[in-house]
Amino acid sequence: MKTRVHLHLDPETRTEAQRRLKSVRGHVEGILRMLDDESAYCVDVLKQIKAVEGALDKVGELILRSHLRDHVVTAAQRGDADAIVEELMELFKYR
Amino acid sequence: MKTRVHLHLDPETRTEAQRRLKSVRGHVEGILRMLDDESAYCVDVLKQIKAVEGALDKVGELILRSHLRDHVVTAAQRGDADAIVEELMELFKYR
Amino acid sequence: MKTRVHLHLDPETRTEAQRRLKSVRGHVEGILRMLDDESAYCVDVLKQIKAVEGALDKVGELILRSHLRDHVVTAAQRGDADAIVEELMELFKYR
Amino acid sequence: MKTRVHLHLDPETRTEAQRRLKSVRGHVEGILRMLDDESAYCVDVLKQIKAVEGALDKVGELILRSHLRDHVVTAAQRGDADAIVEELMELFKYR
Repeated sequence: MKTRVHLHLDPETRTEAQRRLKSVRGHVEGILRMLDDESAYCVDVLKQIKAVEGALDKVGELILRSHLRDHVVTAAQRGDADAIVEELMELFKYR
Repeated sequence: MKTRVHLHLDPETRTEAQRRLKSVRGHVEGILRMLDDESAYCVDVLKQIKAVEGALDKVGELILRSHLRDHVVTAAQRGDADAIVEELMELFKYR
Repeated sequence: MKTRVHLHLDPETRTEAQRRLKSVRGHVEGILRMLDDESAYCVDVLKQIKAVEGALDKVGELILRSHLRDHVVTAAQRGDADAIVEELMELFKYR
Repeated sequence: MKTRVHLHLDPETRTEAQRRLKSVRGHVEGILRMLDDESAYCVDVLKQIKAVEGALDKVGELILRSHLRDHVVTAAQRGDADAIVEELMELFKYR
């Protein structure tokens, strides 16, 4: 984990991300309850897992937009353009 | 949600999926705590979200393997091959 | 490369896959021409690359459906269920 | 298609992207030949399609890195930050 003290997530995005992640947690708990039922059907569980991944993608999009808007587009002015680009590219490789 | 009473998730996979989903829930709670800190950095949060998605992919793989092994490869014998293939294909389109 | 002499792609799917792959090839050639222009804009090229990947996904779906329908749902009858499941799972990990 | 006359792809990236796309075209032609053989096996074809998608992802990464480095990190100085962020976000949604 990096400590870039000057590049914080804006408060509005933080709050919205938390709101959505609480909903993700509730969704995961719902799948856990589905799995308590011994007649749970694979495809129903798989669909719920995809839905949670979709919700997490939305949180990721929210934070990525905020990062691009607040930190990436200003990197040349700040002088850390190379570092910020490599960091982003590392992230896209995970996909 | 479908009710295919005869096609259940095998107990071992159910238990393992639950174990992993509890870990996913803990990971989501960890991100929520990260976001309580107003100096949270976007890229650190994005990495954690990717890690949770990776863990969910693993749960999905577990259940998909079980579904293929227990239900899909026997579909011709059971006589519901068309339905089971379309159901699976619908799922892959979400990706 | 495996040689499973008895598990062939059905002729209709083969023909349709070829038709679509020729279109993919034409699309790649279109991007090559775009890149001959020194004023090519990154985002336009990225969009075209995504479009080609989408077209390839469609070819993959076509072949996957055919494989599930013709070979996977009959695996228990043929007696190679384990091998066919592992082969499929290996493929999904690439995603 | 947009015409942003001032934001071109750098020549080196253009050349490298062309080189890789020619290899992608050759790979697609290889799959077309595979499909001429009526004993082509689904999973072999699926693996080749994934490989082509992987090669296209690499071209996309190359161009994305160039775009971030040359155009995105300087957007605040140029004054088109909002437009450039939305354009990028639109692209990530395709994934």
